Amino acid sequence: MLNRVRSAVAHLVSSGGAPPPRSKSPDLPNTTSALPAAPPEAPRSPPARAGSGSAVPVKTAEARASFSRPTFLQLSPGGLRRADDHSGRAVQSPPDTGRRLPWSTGYAEVINAGKSRHNEDQACCEVVYVEGRRSVSGVPREPSRGQGLCFYYWGLFDGHAGGGAAEMASRLLHRHIREQLKDLVEILQDPSPPPLCLPSTPEAPTSSDSSHLVAPQSCWSSHKEVTHESLVVGAIENAFQLMDEQMARERRGHQVEGGCCALVVVYLLGKIYVANAGDSRAIIVRNGEIIPMSREFTPETERQRLQLLGFLKPELLGGEFTHLEFPRRVQSKELGQRMLYRDQNMTGWAYKKIELEDLRFPLVCGEGKKARVMATIGVTRGLGDHNLKVCSSTLPIKPFLSCFPEVQVYDLTQYEHCPDDVLVLGTDGLWDVTSDCEVAATVDRVLSTFEPNDPSRYTALAQALVLGARGTPRDRGWRLPNNKLGSGDDISVFIIPLGGPGTYS
Amino acid sequence: MLNRVRSAVAHLVSSGGAPPPRSKSPDLPNTTSALPAAPPEAPRSPPARAGSGSAVPVKTAEARASFSRPTFLQLSPGGLRRADDHSGRAVQSPPDTGRRLPWSTGYAEVINAGKSRHNEDQACCEVVYVEGRRSVSGVPREPSRGQGLCFYYWGLFDGHAGGGAAEMASRLLHRHIREQLKDLVEILQDPSPPPLCLPSTPEAPTSSDSSHLVAPQSCWSSHKEVTHESLVVGAIENAFQLMDEQMARERRGHQVEGGCCALVVVYLLGKIYVANAGDSRAIIVRNGEIIPMSREFTPETERQRLQLLGFLKPELLGGEFTHLEFPRRVQSKELGQRMLYRDQNMTGWAYKKIELEDLRFPLVCGEGKKARVMATIGVTRGLGDHNLKVCSSTLPIKPFLSCFPEVQVYDLTQYEHCPDDVLVLGTDGLWDVTSDCEVAATVDRVLSTFEPNDPSRYTALAQALVLGARGTPRDRGWRLPNNKLGSGDDISVFIIPLGGPGTYS
Repeated sequence: MLNRVRSAVAHLVSSGGAPPPRSKSPDLPNTTSALPAAPPEAPRSPPARAGSGSAVPVKTAEARASFSRPTFLQLSPGGLRRADDHSGRAVQSPPDTGRRLPWSTGYAEVINAGKSRHNEDQACCEVVYVEGRRSVSGVPREPSRGQGLCFYYWGLFDGHAGGGAAEMASRLLHRHIREQLKDLVEILQDPSPPPLCLPSTPEAPTSSDSSHLVAPQSCWSSHKEVTHESLVVGAIENAFQLMDEQMARERRGHQVEGGCCALVVVYLLGKIYVANAGDSRAIIVRNGEIIPMSREFTPETERQRLQLLGFLKPELLGGEFTHLEFPRRVQSKELGQRMLYRDQNMTGWAYKKIELEDLRFPLVCGEGKKARVMATIGVTRGLGDHNLKVCSSTLPIKPFLSCFPEVQVYDLTQYEHCPDDVLVLGTDGLWDVTSDCEVAATVDRVLSTFEPNDPSRYTALAQALVLGARGTPRDRGWRLPNNKLGSGDDISVFIIPLGGPGTYS
Repeated sequence: MLNRVRSAVAHLVSSGGAPPPRSKSPDLPNTTSALPAAPPEAPRSPPARAGSGSAVPVKTAEARASFSRPTFLQLSPGGLRRADDHSGRAVQSPPDTGRRLPWSTGYAEVINAGKSRHNEDQACCEVVYVEGRRSVSGVPREPSRGQGLCFYYWGLFDGHAGGGAAEMASRLLHRHIREQLKDLVEILQDPSPPPLCLPSTPEAPTSSDSSHLVAPQSCWSSHKEVTHESLVVGAIENAFQLMDEQMARERRGHQVEGGCCALVVVYLLGKIYVANAGDSRAIIVRNGEIIPMSREFTPETERQRLQLLGFLKPELLGGEFTHLEFPRRVQSKELGQRMLYRDQNMTGWAYKKIELEDLRFPLVCGEGKKARVMATIGVTRGLGDHNLKVCSSTLPIKPFLSCFPEVQVYDLTQYEHCPDDVLVLGTDGLWDVTSDCEVAATVDRVLSTFEPNDPSRYTALAQALVLGARGTPRDRGWRLPNNKLGSGDDISVFIIPLGGPGTYS
């Protein structure tokens, strides 16, 4: 992520000098104590057996935290060096030989033009098996019954101020999702509405029948209908939060420096769940039509949430910032004059008389890619950043950053998809220089040059998109064909085919 | 508004016993001291000369606060009694003779079926002249230059727990809007971008030229572009807030009991601004197509805002409520079991172990028209309600209610409108039993029976909509043709023609 954390890297508190963990962030509900603290099998050190798509450790532990690429790229030591070369910026994809990614998913990435030492994007693609933790009825299940669930999983993690958070999320977030789904294995496969209440101790039920289940048809005359879909959404939301909490706990021991945006896709029981926290983006291109599957979370799009938090909790502003927004920085000589402003409840602008406290730096300032929270960070959702401070200050940024994603659901069974219908995931390196329409045009152009059943077409499409956003070296920079600057950021793209030739019934 | 405040009326603190005004609500920015406290000409008692559309005083001051109908209905004492008759429920409209409402606006209303003593809806329709308060350049303007602005104004106010707030808003909100626009008279008529900063003392400028104006083209390299449109939006937003603050100040002396939803339309310089705070609704029907112009604000649509406030400010919950949402009330015998819940950051549901504090009453509960904040009120935005307490408690509701509207803008110059294109405003009495599509069908059916240039067609349409929502008395109730229950609520409808025959160039 290019320039997302302005100058803040230098101000990051080092691991050794980090302050004790802050009290619970306002973003964190106080109910999580009832949730499992971490997946029991989530490793606190790199897993002995890396998953097919998680980041692979490289030589030493010190190097691992800052430099690894997704396992599925199957990079040799030489390939790893080429992937890390800022001058060549070679596009990386999984090898055309050997096992393909699930659904014949296409993938390509390229390192930045020098803005950070390593590629701070990470990616993960996995098929995850979820074994039920309990029987809904309270009777312990026999493990042999094989009623588990599989979900397909894709994740893009765009790191900033270090690669540690993105690397950790690429290794572990899907395990948190699996953990959250364990309770739901039976419920999701039962067509009846989810039970509102479950017994507390499934392994030692006080009775052997289902009387502990307070089903929707109980004596309660009024209750909300809760759908299976909303349980999966809740599981993903809580998984993000638990991932973030794990980063907070383990940041010192495991060099979880920085933070990351997270864009995650889960396919489960016929539906695609797209969860986004940050400024990556997902779109579906279906029969040439563009269907947005995510929203970006930036200081501009989340201005009112940030201002409200600063207004309700002024101590978070430390007397250094004002929660009001002004169209530009107020000068002390303008005291007593009237300037345009916006408060947290306003979408319009009005004039107000400038007072002393208006001379403080605004909580939210700037426009577009230059917009910042507390003059420091350009995204407002993501994982990590527990050590991030305001430039030249000890004020923590984290309370303003939310780890919660927005989840959009797409029912794959509601449409007949053709082999040219795809879900495109990209980090902001792609979208900074490429519009949705340009992506849709590239989808059409590239896929039409391949046979519909050629599984390599999706990686070719991912490569074309990454190359199109990177450009070629010319005039002391990376230039697009129209001579505009290409993206100097890390660029990572997944192409998920929705209509075959992948078999994902 | 039917049942919007459940049982709360009985718990309203009487004027005499009202506690001292609470400290500033979290919804109110602390910047308002820089704004005018109230329009200087806003009357603190009923105006000597009622505006064409404001509520008319009836006999005694005591009666006034609780029983008045819009002046433009021109009701005689006998007509006023018929309008107040719950058994007959006669539909009221402005007389077909005499001066029409601006733009040949149609209007109709009917009283509720007995849920409150009087009709708690109020309406206002005005043409408002705004004289500039100052010259932008700091030079006092000559009043004779006649560079003022006119705006057209329509307002529907749906009261609850008393008619005082709706009555006051119908008399004064447009004056607050006028006051906010006074500073903008010159700026809005100047095609160049609005100045970011204005001199402080226009009557005594420190220099006579425009050097105090820090125009967008100043030395500042970076600033936000602010549009004229967003200034009008900001003016309306602040007017709502100042109206609410005035109600808080004057609630004891002027019997400003209860609260009200407010749906307001401002037409200014070619654009229509629709501001909504509550559960009234506005739609445009254009060539048969439906264009939503407002969103409803209810405990369901604003769940996350309410929960966040309760989470960040737990003292507002008084130890009696939990900010978590459950699909139904938790029972003490379920302690230790796991129940579905949603936190303020979640859109999905998950299971959590029931703890003691989960037995508290949920901040947000119920569904649809039965949804409530703190078991008390069914809308989450509006004006007034400063005395409203939680049932059987001294906890104030107001911090959870926001007085800020959402403003949607429609550019009237961007389309060729025909005489059948209309903006429909209705209180929830209409929309509870009538869908957008049914309204569009009635628009087509009724208007086609009139000549396009017949100005009475819009009032006929308003009457048809009100009659269609009220139904006819049958089987011990008001019934619709399909035998379903009609609306027993107050019903008020404005029909604003967008394509003539009104002249509003």
